[in-house]
Amino acid sequence: MTTDPPWKAIAQRKQSERLSRIPKEWLLPSLPPASVHDVRSIPRRSGILTAQELAITEDYDATSLASAIRARSLTAEAVARAFCKRAAIAQQLCNCLTEIFFTEALAHARELDREYAQTGRTRGPLHGVPVSLKDTFRVKGYDASIGIASLAEQPARENALLVDILLRAGAVLYCKTGVPQTLMALDSQSNLFGRVLNPRDRRVTAGGSSGGEGALIAMRGSVLGVGTDVGGSIRIPAMCGGLYGIKPSAQRVPFVGQESGTREGGSKIGLPASAGPIATSVRDCELFLQVVSSARPWEQDPSVAYGFWEEQGGVQEKPLLGVIRRDGLIEPLPPVSKVLDETVQALRKAGVEVIEIDAPAFKRCQSLANKFFGIDGNNFMLDLLEKTGEPLTDWLSTRLRRGPQISLPSLIDIHARKTELETEMLKIWKDPKTGRTIDAILCPVAPHPVPPIDRWNGVSYTSSFVLLDYPAGTLPVRDVTAADLLAELPPDSKPLNSWDKVNRGLWDPNTIDRDLYRNTKLSVQVVAPKLQERRLVRAMQLVDDVLRGRVSRIAKL
Amino acid sequence: MTTDPPWKAIAQRKQSERLSRIPKEWLLPSLPPASVHDVRSIPRRSGILTAQELAITEDYDATSLASAIRARSLTAEAVARAFCKRAAIAQQLCNCLTEIFFTEALAHARELDREYAQTGRTRGPLHGVPVSLKDTFRVKGYDASIGIASLAEQPARENALLVDILLRAGAVLYCKTGVPQTLMALDSQSNLFGRVLNPRDRRVTAGGSSGGEGALIAMRGSVLGVGTDVGGSIRIPAMCGGLYGIKPSAQRVPFVGQESGTREGGSKIGLPASAGPIATSVRDCELFLQVVSSARPWEQDPSVAYGFWEEQGGVQEKPLLGVIRRDGLIEPLPPVSKVLDETVQALRKAGVEVIEIDAPAFKRCQSLANKFFGIDGNNFMLDLLEKTGEPLTDWLSTRLRRGPQISLPSLIDIHARKTELETEMLKIWKDPKTGRTIDAILCPVAPHPVPPIDRWNGVSYTSSFVLLDYPAGTLPVRDVTAADLLAELPPDSKPLNSWDKVNRGLWDPNTIDRDLYRNTKLSVQVVAPKLQERRLVRAMQLVDDVLRGRVSRIAKL
Repeated sequence: MTTDPPWKAIAQRKQSERLSRIPKEWLLPSLPPASVHDVRSIPRRSGILTAQELAITEDYDATSLASAIRARSLTAEAVARAFCKRAAIAQQLCNCLTEIFFTEALAHARELDREYAQTGRTRGPLHGVPVSLKDTFRVKGYDASIGIASLAEQPARENALLVDILLRAGAVLYCKTGVPQTLMALDSQSNLFGRVLNPRDRRVTAGGSSGGEGALIAMRGSVLGVGTDVGGSIRIPAMCGGLYGIKPSAQRVPFVGQESGTREGGSKIGLPASAGPIATSVRDCELFLQVVSSARPWEQDPSVAYGFWEEQGGVQEKPLLGVIRRDGLIEPLPPVSKVLDETVQALRKAGVEVIEIDAPAFKRCQSLANKFFGIDGNNFMLDLLEKTGEPLTDWLSTRLRRGPQISLPSLIDIHARKTELETEMLKIWKDPKTGRTIDAILCPVAPHPVPPIDRWNGVSYTSSFVLLDYPAGTLPVRDVTAADLLAELPPDSKPLNSWDKVNRGLWDPNTIDRDLYRNTKLSVQVVAPKLQERRLVRAMQLVDDVLRGRVSRIAKL
Repeated sequence: MTTDPPWKAIAQRKQSERLSRIPKEWLLPSLPPASVHDVRSIPRRSGILTAQELAITEDYDATSLASAIRARSLTAEAVARAFCKRAAIAQQLCNCLTEIFFTEALAHARELDREYAQTGRTRGPLHGVPVSLKDTFRVKGYDASIGIASLAEQPARENALLVDILLRAGAVLYCKTGVPQTLMALDSQSNLFGRVLNPRDRRVTAGGSSGGEGALIAMRGSVLGVGTDVGGSIRIPAMCGGLYGIKPSAQRVPFVGQESGTREGGSKIGLPASAGPIATSVRDCELFLQVVSSARPWEQDPSVAYGFWEEQGGVQEKPLLGVIRRDGLIEPLPPVSKVLDETVQALRKAGVEVIEIDAPAFKRCQSLANKFFGIDGNNFMLDLLEKTGEPLTDWLSTRLRRGPQISLPSLIDIHARKTELETEMLKIWKDPKTGRTIDAILCPVAPHPVPPIDRWNGVSYTSSFVLLDYPAGTLPVRDVTAADLLAELPPDSKPLNSWDKVNRGLWDPNTIDRDLYRNTKLSVQVVAPKLQERRLVRAMQLVDDVLRGRVSRIAKL
């Protein structure tokens, strides 16, 4: 007779505790069969949310919710209840939550309402706005287990700094969201909590590592979430959810107080991750970044650079954008190229100049980023798993191995190569013909549309901007159409390399049913120079306004 | 018969070439004997400088020189000739130069004059202002040998970025200045060029590693110099020269294109050095920093953080300063404590609030900084010396040894400890009683006055702010007086440790002739939080104004 390894009991306890934290009356009477792919309309039909709660969760972004609460047309409590209910349903359909604290959230919201009624003053710009958090953020009293059994059942003794900043701004925290085991995968699956599913289509990936955020917000179970990104982990799930997501430069948003499953101090010699927003509008991303900077986080976290929001750049009066159509490593599939081109054409039609950028160094970024990711040979993380006899998930088991630590001369060498590449890449911010400054650059988020579960292929378009530490955001453009699915790769083209070959497999009718893409959204990525988050947001707003027809034509200067 | 090791011939050639670059008519007919300690007045008596040239070199700072040239009351050529002459004399008396390019400087100045006459436009805010450079900065066509024979006779193929920025702003470059062999000493002595002497008193140290700058500017052979600092190497020679010097945060001023004698990329995992100004006024330090930031260096050097001058902080309308009187490692000698207290009293008398800061973590900074300095076991540098059979200087020979490289886990560990210490030290920027923000902190530059040659003791007061990456500046207060020399340490006090014991030896009449301090100036250090250089400059200006009686009493709010 064999005994089960300890992780199994931990996972069972965690999952049943999670379920117990959903009030009975918020449980769906029956779950839809797996054949129901798009589950986004189920909350509307569930009868669990009132008409007002449906409106609260569907008709607002965080900015307008905050306004409505400030104008007393909504209470914080009503808003919190609506999102708790909808998050509860999202959990049942997409398995996107890890820690649930609805009861505390409702009590906190009532307290905010009482305080506002008594003092006439809101606590801050997020007064009453529910904010969801990636599982990595420590919230006092709750686990930050990042999908690893040995880190579970160890409630945090204090809040991460960002959590305190959000609370001081008036946010209502009510849940934490699912991640991949170890955080080092692009599908958010763990032995501890299972797999996060994409509510747009449960057959395609919800992305990762902030996959729970992407799924929850796509279900409108959250209006504003916080993720982290060290290879694409905000931008990828934002794309999967058809949402807006920004990875700031690493020194911008306080990261301290998160569980990362790595040796303390390790990020200082490698590539530091960034925390940032996932939301349903550009202005909500701006609201988040503004709240963070006005909290002067550099006074509490020494890894944050000084700089208020107004000191984080902007776009020129007559904006100039660039477009990078391919990274030279993986050729974008037809709909990805198409939506990028449509965006460029829409901008040009609106009077925004967009120039083609030649960035030969771009293709060298990914392999160097990979060298940084492997610095410690994954031993710290794998030791954590061994503690409870926990196996790697299937996807990770063929990818994550113990390796030797990098040697000091090699470490120094990859830093020198990084500086060299950073220097080379700085050239992309000038029009080589005229020397004019390019405000922001458009490029794909990924070389493929949102793929089936466990088939995300290649992160070169996202991780390169982690290596370069550029702020970068995902901007949804439009749904995939039937026409998109008919486009073919150039008939005589050959794969550039093994990554490109796998990527082509995501379009080849022999290896994929293209119809799987039908419920997904196509997105573009917008990128700005390091530590210029306001410049990025201004550029994203411009692109978004043009795409949504909010500006017909940019005024000529 | 033994052959001389190659370094000897290199040193001979370098020194005779250097001499050959001084025009005959600028050579002093005879050199003063060693018994002449203070050589500052010799240029005035030499007959080499005209009355106008004496005025140019003695009556202006860089800001007023730039104004005079802009107003056409001085030509760039006249200014350049005056400073070339005076630098030539400084070299003869203090051995402070390494590379000399007077001829090119004069031609460049004439070109600037011609251009200004023709176009009516100055090239930039430094139009015609001579700027001297530490030997580390690569200037096309000249060596950057950092006092190591094997790096000599290898003229740079391009300018360091900062050199180009200065040139674009209109500066006239005319010489590079002496450093210690390897840069890792506090007296600027090398086999290649000999020892830099302090013109205030040739028996006391000129400091290092930017010792040539300090000596040259103290001789008024330069009005504005650029040094670098990774342990005190700007602030220490500034103190030795009785000058103003600022070490910015590492990400502020472009450092790229310098010779450092270390493995490319090494600074990325250790403590990066900063480049910064040494000058005769606070406003000249500001001018330098402003010129640098308005050149948008972050567009060319990826290691520079985004941020224009106006985005680098400021002081509150009603400033609040703090004072740290001791670091807990080395007790300041009586005149150092006295001048710090005088400064505090003057500020308080002028209506500026100054509160006492308790910083228990301060004493842990130095030993951690030391761990960072030893990361590569000095092997790269010592290999450079071996190439030409060059021995270490006497001072270095007992201090610089080959050691093992640090292991990766230890490297990660010291980074984790650094973050912990940085976090702890952030507390010093708030008044613990009221929570008010402290604009800047005053503390000693060193625990002793400017000591005799090769006896600088301990850099804890300077290197701690490299570890913390705080911008920090040296501000001269007043000359040492006879009364200062009579003050005694508390009679029953005991040395805190071996450093403190050595420090006491710098005051004990049995081990030092206190009269050696008579020609030196006492200084204080002013410190601001990371990346807030403008805040530092504003605070230094406030302290300076109060000390010079430029403000009688700060307006009450």
